[in-house]
Amino acid sequence: MQPGTPPLVNQLIDMALEEDLGRGDITCRLTVPEDAHSQGHLIAKQALVVSGIHVFAAVMRRVDPATRIHIEIGDGQSARPGALIARTDGRTASLLMAERVALNFLQRLSGTATLTRELVDALPPDATTRLVDTRKTTPGMRWLEREAVRHGGGHNHRVDLSGGVLIKENHAAAAGGVGRAIALCRQNAPHLLRIEAEVRNAAEFDEALLAGADCIMLDNMSPEQMAECVKKANKRVILEASGGVSRQTVADIAATGVDIISVGAITHSAPGADISFIIDGVTPV
Amino acid sequence: MQPGTPPLVNQLIDMALEEDLGRGDITCRLTVPEDAHSQGHLIAKQALVVSGIHVFAAVMRRVDPATRIHIEIGDGQSARPGALIARTDGRTASLLMAERVALNFLQRLSGTATLTRELVDALPPDATTRLVDTRKTTPGMRWLEREAVRHGGGHNHRVDLSGGVLIKENHAAAAGGVGRAIALCRQNAPHLLRIEAEVRNAAEFDEALLAGADCIMLDNMSPEQMAECVKKANKRVILEASGGVSRQTVADIAATGVDIISVGAITHSAPGADISFIIDGVTPV
Amino acid sequence: MQPGTPPLVNQLIDMALEEDLGRGDITCRLTVPEDAHSQGHLIAKQALVVSGIHVFAAVMRRVDPATRIHIEIGDGQSARPGALIARTDGRTASLLMAERVALNFLQRLSGTATLTRELVDALPPDATTRLVDTRKTTPGMRWLEREAVRHGGGHNHRVDLSGGVLIKENHAAAAGGVGRAIALCRQNAPHLLRIEAEVRNAAEFDEALLAGADCIMLDNMSPEQMAECVKKANKRVILEASGGVSRQTVADIAATGVDIISVGAITHSAPGADISFIIDGVTPV
Amino acid sequence: MQPGTPPLVNQLIDMALEEDLGRGDITCRLTVPEDAHSQGHLIAKQALVVSGIHVFAAVMRRVDPATRIHIEIGDGQSARPGALIARTDGRTASLLMAERVALNFLQRLSGTATLTRELVDALPPDATTRLVDTRKTTPGMRWLEREAVRHGGGHNHRVDLSGGVLIKENHAAAAGGVGRAIALCRQNAPHLLRIEAEVRNAAEFDEALLAGADCIMLDNMSPEQMAECVKKANKRVILEASGGVSRQTVADIAATGVDIISVGAITHSAPGADISFIIDGVTPV
Amino acid sequence: MQPGTPPLVNQLIDMALEEDLGRGDITCRLTVPEDAHSQGHLIAKQALVVSGIHVFAAVMRRVDPATRIHIEIGDGQSARPGALIARTDGRTASLLMAERVALNFLQRLSGTATLTRELVDALPPDATTRLVDTRKTTPGMRWLEREAVRHGGGHNHRVDLSGGVLIKENHAAAAGGVGRAIALCRQNAPHLLRIEAEVRNAAEFDEALLAGADCIMLDNMSPEQMAECVKKANKRVILEASGGVSRQTVADIAATGVDIISVGAITHSAPGADISFIIDGVTPV
Amino acid sequence: MQPGTPPLVNQLIDMALEEDLGRGDITCRLTVPEDAHSQGHLIAKQALVVSGIHVFAAVMRRVDPATRIHIEIGDGQSARPGALIARTDGRTASLLMAERVALNFLQRLSGTATLTRELVDALPPDATTRLVDTRKTTPGMRWLEREAVRHGGGHNHRVDLSGGVLIKENHAAAAGGVGRAIALCRQNAPHLLRIEAEVRNAAEFDEALLAGADCIMLDNMSPEQMAECVKKANKRVILEASGGVSRQTVADIAATGVDIISVGAITHSAPGADISFIIDGVTPV
Repeated sequence: MQPGTPPLVNQLIDMALEEDLGRGDITCRLTVPEDAHSQGHLIAKQALVVSGIHVFAAVMRRVDPATRIHIEIGDGQSARPGALIARTDGRTASLLMAERVALNFLQRLSGTATLTRELVDALPPDATTRLVDTRKTTPGMRWLEREAVRHGGGHNHRVDLSGGVLIKENHAAAAGGVGRAIALCRQNAPHLLRIEAEVRNAAEFDEALLAGADCIMLDNMSPEQMAECVKKANKRVILEASGGVSRQTVADIAATGVDIISVGAITHSAPGADISFIIDGVTPV
Repeated sequence: MQPGTPPLVNQLIDMALEEDLGRGDITCRLTVPEDAHSQGHLIAKQALVVSGIHVFAAVMRRVDPATRIHIEIGDGQSARPGALIARTDGRTASLLMAERVALNFLQRLSGTATLTRELVDALPPDATTRLVDTRKTTPGMRWLEREAVRHGGGHNHRVDLSGGVLIKENHAAAAGGVGRAIALCRQNAPHLLRIEAEVRNAAEFDEALLAGADCIMLDNMSPEQMAECVKKANKRVILEASGGVSRQTVADIAATGVDIISVGAITHSAPGADISFIIDGVTPV
Repeated sequence: MQPGTPPLVNQLIDMALEEDLGRGDITCRLTVPEDAHSQGHLIAKQALVVSGIHVFAAVMRRVDPATRIHIEIGDGQSARPGALIARTDGRTASLLMAERVALNFLQRLSGTATLTRELVDALPPDATTRLVDTRKTTPGMRWLEREAVRHGGGHNHRVDLSGGVLIKENHAAAAGGVGRAIALCRQNAPHLLRIEAEVRNAAEFDEALLAGADCIMLDNMSPEQMAECVKKANKRVILEASGGVSRQTVADIAATGVDIISVGAITHSAPGADISFIIDGVTPV
Repeated sequence: MQPGTPPLVNQLIDMALEEDLGRGDITCRLTVPEDAHSQGHLIAKQALVVSGIHVFAAVMRRVDPATRIHIEIGDGQSARPGALIARTDGRTASLLMAERVALNFLQRLSGTATLTRELVDALPPDATTRLVDTRKTTPGMRWLEREAVRHGGGHNHRVDLSGGVLIKENHAAAAGGVGRAIALCRQNAPHLLRIEAEVRNAAEFDEALLAGADCIMLDNMSPEQMAECVKKANKRVILEASGGVSRQTVADIAATGVDIISVGAITHSAPGADISFIIDGVTPV
Repeated sequence: MQPGTPPLVNQLIDMALEEDLGRGDITCRLTVPEDAHSQGHLIAKQALVVSGIHVFAAVMRRVDPATRIHIEIGDGQSARPGALIARTDGRTASLLMAERVALNFLQRLSGTATLTRELVDALPPDATTRLVDTRKTTPGMRWLEREAVRHGGGHNHRVDLSGGVLIKENHAAAAGGVGRAIALCRQNAPHLLRIEAEVRNAAEFDEALLAGADCIMLDNMSPEQMAECVKKANKRVILEASGGVSRQTVADIAATGVDIISVGAITHSAPGADISFIIDGVTPV
Repeated sequence: MQPGTPPLVNQLIDMALEEDLGRGDITCRLTVPEDAHSQGHLIAKQALVVSGIHVFAAVMRRVDPATRIHIEIGDGQSARPGALIARTDGRTASLLMAERVALNFLQRLSGTATLTRELVDALPPDATTRLVDTRKTTPGMRWLEREAVRHGGGHNHRVDLSGGVLIKENHAAAAGGVGRAIALCRQNAPHLLRIEAEVRNAAEFDEALLAGADCIMLDNMSPEQMAECVKKANKRVILEASGGVSRQTVADIAATGVDIISVGAITHSAPGADISFIIDGVTPV
């Protein structure tokens, strides 16, 4: 894959191949001549945004380095139903052994990119609001799903528990109030991290604002409450809306003037995109 | 976890913790006193079938072996909205650090169990038809998702590419026809594996039947076509219906008399179940 | 290695190199000029069936990707004493460092293939009986040894504890009898797995037959008892003979008409095949 | 296991469990009640020297930490046919799942210990000659097999390619003769390593002696040639005999006065010791 | 170790034990009776700040879970020469096998904490300037060394390349100038990350300030240049001084009014702290 | 890297990249065009001995296999301040992502080589005394640091706890005296390992000499005591001086006639060598 792809991605590819292919493919071994070659075509069966095509290719090459993949529609690009996303060329058995695992990645990631794009497209045309992901990701796929969100036009929230300070209700309670929690963080957080606090009502919002939060997350507030916060904040802090986001509500939330809208569903509940891998025949050896 | 849980599950737990917690939780470190303790409650926010509660517990204990978990509603059991699934007791920081990853497993698996149960419940009351999963699983979660399917009342298809012979269109083409492919497999497949062949029409069905397949998968056939195959098979082979299965269609498909209905969506497109983890306050140290 | 070789094989190669070469080869470092090149010849010192030549090559290339290996006698082929199995070409130090580990794999696997071939050759010429392996394999080498058995003309039993149902005495006892155990399995085993039950006498055999076992293992029965079972089964189930198999007895067992003869010794007690790796001189740098 | 056991041993245990149990034990899951308990007895079926009983126990506990093992005959002790080597107590399913892998280690290692003991017992009663192993070990089992050799009364050769300098024919050729190779090693080998050189005839022996080897390996020499070398060496160097060692020849070789006799067969061709694991019944839950 | 310690730390402990102990401790095996017990005392041989005592304990317990460690002077505390840092109690062989690796961690980390404390102590008493680390850490020890810096009274810079945006000269060149680079980052960096730019002179400083950097790193500037930047910045951005920091210069740099001083030497060139582990005698078995 | 480099080295490279780059390089992603190319120059900023240049190259290629590295000054060679050690050529983003980790290895290893060379250069010109390392190495870097010591002109002590017998005070106490400990080792240590005993005074020295130690380590003795031991030993054993070695004392110690001087500081306290990696501009895409 591209330089900079974390090793965890390759580990997950290996795990996925291990759980499907780790004892061998008995059907291929018994039916497919070792030297038979085929072409495969990857076809979108619905309108979608592609994400994970490089993972698809990496799985194919991990099974057989000799397999060649030609990408027609790259990550972040839209595909119409019936569109050719990629072509592959290689040993028939290698294509068949890699197919399912490669698709399992591609379909899931394209599902996330596609749902993200739908939500982004539902924002008002001139909105500067960012749609961002959450930590509600599939175990092992955090990095890939964050990329899929960007492919869909979204932005990323903090990468992990070290990539930003986010004070939730329980942190505040443990520290003795949200104001005290913010103060503790300002003293000791690395200087390249901003401090965000989650609030549920106007009183907490005021306390967070006063204590010097850099960002404030408005948790499950109504658009009216959000608008009130936007007004009070007066651009001094970054405001994030969280909770109850859907294709129906996203425009109204954006209209309140919040900077960020975070949505868990784009990673935890996106249906897999419908994509087929068609093998076009077998060249006799 | 229970004896017999494969190491891959623990590896995936470690990967998921690594990607979220691998650089530490900066917010906890700065705001939560090291010895603060809390109770946590795991609450169903929708009607659901629980799956993955042992994984939830394993994640909690992996972060802190001292955390205690009391399960109220076990894997495979139904929970009503508002039901208490489990209670936890431990260091506040440990609960907060483990919470998100533990939920990411539990919500996804319970989502699969819940959707499976809905489909199984849509079968005619006296049906002997099995609803089974496919290999369209989340990378790294094959074993857990297969278990979730059973928790939801479904059965499992082959565990991987070595756990059964399944001759698809391309294997048949490579071997020189489905009959020839079946013959090759009968000669050399391990004697504890059955041989299944995928067919798309009556002619292929007849060829597979004649060649001695143990099972035949009817791919994207109409209920009428299926019923025709059931009649021809006359219980000599196991019949599996595949394609186009939904809550709407599953009863009609079962009514044709097929033995098995396989559904990819229960693993690739089940929405995450809505479950909350509420931490109930912090005991001052 | 060939596409589809499980990652476990590469892990074992790495472990074997680690335990021999992990701190470096002090003798090579001190005596062999870095750029010296040599040719190596792999010679059979006894009549044998080759297995593991691709592992030999993989070990050589793992130590030094620049080493070239030309295989003359491939896996599954017979070699006469003195026959050239393969030639290698590369840095002298690389050949010397890889030699022992590469041979340790090749000799063990060829030992299994050779012993298997001897037993298969002892079957009556027209027998359809399969000689199969067991789970009594060398830790870490399950996959390679199963392949070696096939190279020797044998077949494989189930790949692991998930690759078939095999009800032994203790499972039967735990379930409340072999009949009850078979019934439980018929209800819930994946439809692509056959159900085999182990029996020790006629009564158990009858119970297993009645309960609908797909296969029955005759454990340590005399040829007479086996013949009796073959008669009763009348081709409705697959029969496997187990216990007391040797070059002396295998023909008599096959003559009873059983379908399968399983032998642990081909994996747990095959002597290593005698193979030498001769390095032919050192090209001065 | 005992403190100091290398991690590689645990890795190999995990690999062996993974390859047998990694997809679960379908038979146990379907037939054995989750809470059934049993006792198991480990019985020697032949006269043998035990080795690997701690590995057996480690495998059992790795599958289920609650399984208890009571060792009656420890590593390095002899067992008569029928002797009870150990008792185990635990969940029936846990015993059944761990049994095969645990035995695969124990039988192989006890096989090596037993064969070693036979050869050691064949040495003249007053001999000070050491019987030592070689690097011809099972991939992944180097450490355990070296221990098994000691359990059988043998000694160990160098642990790996870094644990001693051993100049073979090819090293000598690469360095420009055995004398030159020895000189190079004396200059630069770590001072805690002795330098051994392999020789095939009297001329090479004289050259090695003159060059200051600490040990000399007599490769495939006749007892007469060996005796000649012993005489010439006059106790100034350690002499090792290699090649053609068997129960028949070992006493004659020792009688020549060599210090060390190395034997590959104790690790590469020892038949597995015959040991049974009997589960004694199932306690109803 | 404490909950939240990343798995990488345990991996590094395992690697360090593997490279020292992976083939066993031959001296202990031959000289120390298996059941001999001893007490060990960990003594500071110089004035130092302790860091890594939990790693020391973890190494001890990794070698032998039965070893007990009583910590007298915890991480972040100062020890005078001769002070008792911890006592251990366990098998003599276990203490001896773990000693060196445990000390290798403790001495290095305490070295970093001690040097950090010296630099922090050299800051003016009323300074609010933070002394921070860099990415110039020991391979594999990033997390532990960042903790050691905090134990010494320092703060941490970004945890890794994802934990903050830091635009260096080459990023600026690639983007078409530092201003353009800052603009790109403001558009797309996750909202919880601040954006820092490195500048080498007044012109670059002005450009970065204008473009909206959140932090500016003053690279190898003189105190006079720094003071000028502090004045211009007027508290609108965070200023970091980098380069040429030593016990001699740190106070002068702090006096310029910069917020942050970063020092590579505390991780890449801190001498190991002098600490002895004394085993106090051996209890006969 | 060169054939024979242990896998642990690659694991450590992966860990170091993981801890720096495992979540991606946010700055590069946002500022550096994907196809921008650059040249990099590796420049010595002080007089130094190069060590680790192959690790530097391996890190670069691990991040991006397309990066090319041309080495000008190889491992073990001296570099003057300002000297060009190597040039690299590749994608700008790849160079920037790999730079820090690659330098962290190179600077540390060159630091060890440089300090070793200084000590070796301080030996009397005609001395045959070896300067050797100890087990006081950086966790995970044992193999590389031992190589660095050789690059600096030093020799290696035993590779690990299995690579030589070294009886310290506690082993002697456990065995019942240094003489008894030596006797136990002579009986059972592998014949290719020498036996060294540590002594602190003349009485222990005499006991060790009498008991037949192959080497004796003189622990923290004065040059006068050492000279006395050298005289008594009369070349029958190898003598190692340990403790209090510095640039000031090393010549005097060598002058006593000891064979070996061991120094921990070359691995545990060598300051990192000052080396810069300059990227020379960015080719517009």
